[in-house]
Amino acid sequence: MKLGRINHVGVATPSIDQSIAAYRDLMGATVIGVPFDLPAQGVRVCFVDTPNTQIELIEPLGADSPIVKFLEKNPQGGQHHVCFEVPDIDAARAWFDDKGARILGPTRTGAHGTPIFFLHPKDMGGVLTEIMESPGDEH
Amino acid sequence: MKLGRINHVGVATPSIDQSIAAYRDLMGATVIGVPFDLPAQGVRVCFVDTPNTQIELIEPLGADSPIVKFLEKNPQGGQHHVCFEVPDIDAARAWFDDKGARILGPTRTGAHGTPIFFLHPKDMGGVLTEIMESPGDEH
Repeated sequence: MKLGRINHVGVATPSIDQSIAAYRDLMGATVIGVPFDLPAQGVRVCFVDTPNTQIELIEPLGADSPIVKFLEKNPQGGQHHVCFEVPDIDAARAWFDDKGARILGPTRTGAHGTPIFFLHPKDMGGVLTEIMESPGDEH
Repeated sequence: MKLGRINHVGVATPSIDQSIAAYRDLMGATVIGVPFDLPAQGVRVCFVDTPNTQIELIEPLGADSPIVKFLEKNPQGGQHHVCFEVPDIDAARAWFDDKGARILGPTRTGAHGTPIFFLHPKDMGGVLTEIMESPGDEH
Protein backbone atom coordinates (compact mmCIF):
# COMPACT_ATOMS: atom_id res chain seq x y z
CA MET A 1 0.00 0.00 0.00
CA LYS A 2 1.13 3.52 -0.73
CA LEU A 3 0.26 6.50 1.47
CA GLY A 4 -2.68 8.31 -0.10
CA ARG A 5 -3.79 11.90 0.00
CA ILE A 6 -5.25 13.36 3.17
CA ASN A 7 -8.92 13.63 2.33
CA HIS A 8 -9.67 15.64 5.44
CA VAL A 9 -8.66 16.61 8.93
CA GLY A 10 -11.52 15.75 11.28
CA VAL A 11 -12.27 18.46 13.84
CA ALA A 12 -14.81 17.84 16.59
CA THR A 13 -16.83 20.83 17.68
CA PRO A 14 -19.66 21.50 20.12
CA SER A 15 -21.18 23.77 17.46
CA ILE A 16 -20.74 23.47 13.72
CA ASP A 17 -22.30 26.92 13.34
CA GLN A 18 -19.65 28.51 15.55
CA SER A 19 -16.88 26.62 13.81
CA ILE A 20 -18.16 27.65 10.39
CA ALA A 21 -18.08 31.26 11.57
CA ALA A 22 -14.45 30.89 12.69
CA TYR A 23 -13.28 29.30 9.45
CA ARG A 24 -15.26 31.79 7.35
CA ASP A 25 -14.74 35.05 9.23
CA LEU A 26 -11.33 34.52 10.81
CA MET A 27 -9.60 32.15 8.37
CA GLY A 28 -11.27 33.31 5.17
CA ALA A 29 -12.85 30.04 4.03
CA THR A 30 -15.11 30.58 1.04
CA VAL A 31 -16.16 27.05 0.09
CA ILE A 32 -18.19 25.62 2.94
CA GLY A 33 -20.59 22.73 2.47
CA VAL A 34 -24.10 22.51 3.82
CA PRO A 35 -24.07 20.66 7.16
CA PHE A 36 -25.81 17.29 7.15
CA ASP A 37 -26.61 14.50 9.58
CA LEU A 38 -24.75 11.20 9.38
CA PRO A 39 -26.83 9.08 11.75
CA ALA A 40 -24.84 5.89 11.09
CA GLN A 41 -21.79 7.61 12.65
CA GLY A 42 -23.70 9.63 15.23
CA VAL A 43 -22.41 12.96 13.95
CA ARG A 44 -23.52 16.05 12.09
CA VAL A 45 -20.94 16.93 9.43
CA CYS A 46 -19.78 19.98 7.51
CA PHE A 47 -16.88 20.11 5.07
CA VAL A 48 -14.77 23.25 4.75
CA ASP A 49 -12.62 23.24 1.63
CA THR A 50 -9.01 24.35 1.61
CA PRO A 51 -7.17 24.52 -1.74
CA ASN A 52 -5.62 21.08 -1.22
CA THR A 53 -7.79 19.18 1.28
CA GLN A 54 -10.73 19.63 3.63
CA ILE A 55 -11.56 20.26 7.26
CA GLU A 56 -14.39 17.96 8.37
CA LEU A 57 -16.31 19.59 11.19
CA ILE A 58 -18.18 17.03 13.28
CA GLU A 59 -20.74 17.80 15.96
CA PRO A 60 -22.41 15.18 18.18
CA LEU A 61 -25.70 13.83 16.83
CA GLY A 62 -27.56 12.41 19.79
CA ALA A 63 -26.41 11.50 23.30
CA ASP A 64 -24.78 8.27 22.10
CA SER A 65 -22.54 10.06 19.64
CA PRO A 66 -19.02 8.60 19.62
CA ILE A 67 -17.58 12.10 19.98
CA VAL A 68 -19.40 12.98 23.21
CA LYS A 69 -16.49 11.75 25.32
CA PHE A 70 -13.98 13.61 23.19
CA LEU A 71 -15.90 16.83 23.76
CA GLU A 72 -16.14 16.19 27.49
CA LYS A 73 -12.33 16.12 27.52
CA ASN A 74 -12.07 18.96 24.99
CA PRO A 75 -15.08 21.22 25.57
CA GLN A 76 -14.04 23.72 22.90
CA GLY A 77 -13.48 20.97 20.38
CA GLY A 78 -10.24 19.97 18.72
CA GLN A 79 -8.52 17.76 16.21
CA HIS A 80 -10.25 14.39 16.23
CA HIS A 81 -8.86 12.31 13.36
CA VAL A 82 -6.98 12.35 10.07
CA CYS A 83 -8.44 10.65 6.98
CA PHE A 84 -6.27 9.11 4.27
CA GLU A 85 -7.58 7.95 0.90
CA VAL A 86 -7.01 4.49 -0.53
CA PRO A 87 -7.99 3.24 -3.99
CA ASP A 88 -9.69 0.04 -2.70
CA ILE A 89 -11.12 -0.26 0.81
CA ASP A 90 -11.17 -4.09 0.83
CA ALA A 91 -7.54 -4.30 -0.23
CA ALA A 92 -6.65 -1.72 2.42
CA ARG A 93 -8.50 -3.63 5.11
CA ALA A 94 -6.69 -6.83 4.15
CA TRP A 95 -3.37 -4.94 4.24
CA PHE A 96 -3.97 -3.59 7.75
CA ASP A 97 -5.28 -6.96 8.96
CA ASP A 98 -2.14 -8.58 7.63
CA LYS A 99 0.02 -6.01 9.42
CA GLY A 100 -1.75 -6.76 12.70
CA ALA A 101 -3.19 -3.24 12.99
CA ARG A 102 -6.31 -2.86 15.11
CA ILE A 103 -9.31 -1.92 12.97
CA LEU A 104 -12.21 -0.32 14.82
CA GLY A 105 -15.46 -1.93 13.74
CA PRO A 106 -16.78 -2.88 10.35
CA THR A 107 -16.25 -1.10 7.08
CA ARG A 108 -19.09 1.37 6.69
CA THR A 109 -20.20 4.31 4.60
CA GLY A 110 -18.47 7.58 5.44
CA ALA A 111 -19.37 11.22 5.05
CA HIS A 112 -18.34 11.29 1.39
CA GLY A 113 -20.51 8.27 0.58
CA THR A 114 -17.61 5.88 0.10
CA PRO A 115 -16.60 3.02 2.40
CA ILE A 116 -14.38 3.82 5.38
CA PHE A 117 -12.96 2.29 8.53
CA PHE A 118 -10.86 3.56 11.42
CA LEU A 119 -7.51 2.38 12.77
CA HIS A 120 -6.88 2.42 16.51
CA PRO A 121 -4.84 5.45 17.62
CA LYS A 122 -2.48 3.13 19.48
CA ASP A 123 -1.18 1.82 16.18
CA MET A 124 -0.72 5.31 14.74
CA GLY A 125 1.10 7.28 17.42
CA GLY A 126 -2.07 8.42 19.15
CA VAL A 127 -3.75 9.65 15.96
CA LEU A 128 -7.20 8.24 15.24
CA THR A 129 -6.79 7.39 11.57
CA GLU A 130 -9.62 7.04 9.06
CA ILE A 131 -9.08 5.04 5.90
CA MET A 132 -11.45 6.05 3.10
CA GLU A 133 -11.98 4.75 -0.39
CA SER A 134 -11.37 7.63 -2.79
CA PRO A 135 -14.43 9.05 -4.48
CA GLY A 136 -14.30 7.90 -8.09
CA ASP A 137 -14.36 11.38 -9.53
CA GLU A 138 -11.05 12.25 -7.94
CA HIS A 139 -9.16 9.62 -9.92
CA MET B 1 -7.71 36.94 3.70
CA LYS B 2 -8.56 33.72 1.91
CA LEU B 3 -8.11 30.30 3.46
CA GLY B 4 -4.84 28.85 2.20
CA ARG B 5 -3.68 25.31 1.69
CA ILE B 6 -2.94 23.08 4.63
CA ASN B 7 0.83 22.92 4.60
CA HIS B 8 0.93 20.20 7.22
CA VAL B 9 -0.80 18.45 10.06
CA GLY B 10 1.44 18.62 13.11
CA VAL B 11 1.66 15.36 15.04
CA ALA B 12 3.52 15.23 18.36
CA THR B 13 5.32 12.01 19.12
CA PRO B 14 7.57 10.70 21.88
CA SER B 15 9.69 9.08 19.17
CA ILE B 16 10.10 10.30 15.62
CA ASP B 17 11.80 7.01 14.79
CA GLN B 18 8.77 4.99 15.90
CA SER B 19 6.39 7.32 14.08
CA ILE B 20 8.44 7.12 10.89
CA ALA B 21 8.20 3.33 11.13
CA ALA B 22 4.40 3.52 11.46
CA TYR B 23 3.92 5.88 8.51
CA ARG B 24 6.39 3.91 6.38
CA ASP B 25 5.58 0.31 7.25
CA LEU B 26 1.88 0.53 8.10
CA MET B 27 0.67 3.47 5.97
CA GLY B 28 3.05 3.07 3.05
CA ALA B 29 4.76 6.47 3.12
CA THR B 30 7.63 6.62 0.66
CA VAL B 31 8.77 10.24 0.85
CA ILE B 32 10.07 10.89 4.35
CA GLY B 33 12.44 13.73 5.11
CA VAL B 34 15.55 13.52 7.23
CA PRO B 35 14.73 14.51 10.83
CA PHE B 36 16.33 17.74 12.02
CA ASP B 37 16.50 19.83 15.18
CA LEU B 38 14.64 23.13 15.37
CA PRO B 39 16.09 24.55 18.58
CA ALA B 40 14.20 27.86 18.29
CA GLN B 41 10.94 25.90 18.66
CA GLY B 42 12.27 23.26 21.03
CA VAL B 43 11.38 20.38 18.75
CA ARG B 44 12.96 17.81 16.49
CA VAL B 45 11.08 17.66 13.19
CA CYS B 46 10.45 15.20 10.38
CA PHE B 47 8.17 15.75 7.39
CA VAL B 48 6.26 12.83 5.88
CA ASP B 49 4.85 13.66 2.44
CA THR B 50 1.38 12.68 1.35
CA PRO B 51 0.33 13.38 -2.26
CA ASN B 52 -1.38 16.64 -1.28
CA THR B 53 0.12 17.83 2.01
CA GLN B 54 2.48 16.73 4.78
CA ILE B 55 2.49 15.24 8.24
CA GLU B 56 4.95 17.12 10.46
CA LEU B 57 6.24 14.79 13.17
CA ILE B 58 7.53 16.72 16.17
CA GLU B 59 9.45 15.26 19.09
CA PRO B 60 10.50 17.22 22.18
CA LEU B 61 13.96 18.76 21.97
CA GLY B 62 15.09 19.36 25.53
CA ALA B 63 13.17 19.44 28.81
CA ASP B 64 11.75 22.89 28.10
CA SER B 65 10.16 21.84 24.83
CA PRO B 66 6.69 23.35 24.39
CA ILE B 67 5.31 19.91 23.56
CA VAL B 68 6.39 18.23 26.81
CA LYS B 69 3.05 18.99 28.46
CA PHE B 70 1.11 17.76 25.44
CA LEU B 71 2.97 14.44 25.62
CA GLU B 72 2.34 14.17 29.36
CA LYS B 73 -1.37 14.32 28.54
CA ASN B 74 -0.99 12.18 25.42
CA PRO B 75 1.88 9.78 26.09
CA GLN B 76 1.53 8.03 22.73
CA GLY B 77 1.47 11.32 20.87
CA GLY B 78 -1.35 12.77 18.82
CA GLN B 79 -2.55 15.57 16.59
CA HIS B 80 -0.94 18.76 17.81
CA HIS B 81 -1.70 21.55 15.31
CA VAL B 82 -2.81 22.35 11.78
CA CYS B 83 -0.75 24.70 9.60
CA PHE B 84 -2.30 26.90 6.92
CA GLU B 85 -0.30 28.82 4.33
CA VAL B 86 -0.64 32.53 3.66
CA PRO B 87 1.05 34.55 0.92
CA ASP B 88 2.33 37.29 3.29
CA ILE B 89 2.94 36.70 6.99
CA ASP B 90 2.89 40.39 7.95
CA ALA B 91 -0.42 40.97 6.20
CA ALA B 92 -1.81 37.84 7.88
CA ARG B 93 -0.65 38.99 11.30
CA ALA B 94 -2.29 42.37 10.76
CA TRP B 95 -5.49 40.61 9.65
CA PHE B 96 -5.68 38.44 12.76
CA ASP B 97 -4.76 41.37 15.02
CA ASP B 98 -7.55 43.37 13.46
CA LYS B 99 -9.98 40.49 14.05
CA GLY B 100 -9.00 40.37 17.72
CA ALA B 101 -7.58 36.85 17.46
CA ARG B 102 -5.00 35.90 20.06
CA ILE B 103 -1.57 35.42 18.47
CA LEU B 104 0.88 33.34 20.48
CA GLY B 105 4.25 35.06 20.59
CA PRO B 106 6.26 36.77 17.90
CA THR B 107 6.51 35.85 14.25
CA ARG B 108 9.44 33.46 13.94
CA THR B 109 11.07 31.09 11.49
CA GLY B 110 9.28 27.76 11.10
CA ALA B 111 10.34 24.29 10.06
CA HIS B 112 10.16 25.15 6.36
CA GLY B 113 12.38 28.22 6.82
CA THR B 114 9.59 30.72 6.28
CA PRO B 115 8.01 32.99 8.94
CA ILE B 116 5.21 31.55 11.06
CA PHE B 117 3.08 32.31 14.09
CA PHE B 118 0.43 30.44 16.04
CA LEU B 119 -3.17 31.33 16.86
CA HIS B 120 -4.61 30.41 20.24
CA PRO B 121 -6.76 27.26 20.11
CA LYS B 122 -9.54 29.12 21.89
CA ASP B 123 -10.11 31.24 18.80
CA MET B 124 -10.14 28.21 16.49
CA GLY B 125 -12.45 25.69 18.14
CA GLY B 126 -9.73 24.07 20.21
CA VAL B 127 -7.35 23.62 17.28
CA LEU B 128 -3.86 25.07 17.71
CA THR B 129 -3.47 26.79 14.34
CA GLU B 130 -0.17 27.67 12.70
CA ILE B 131 -0.05 30.38 10.06
CA MET B 132 2.93 30.01 7.73
CA GLU B 133 4.18 32.11 4.85
CA SER B 134 4.19 29.90 1.76
CA PRO B 135 7.58 28.86 0.49
CA GLY B 136 8.23 30.88 -2.68
CA ASP B 137 8.62 27.82 -4.87
CA GLU B 138 5.05 26.74 -4.28
CA HIS B 139 3.62 29.87 -5.90
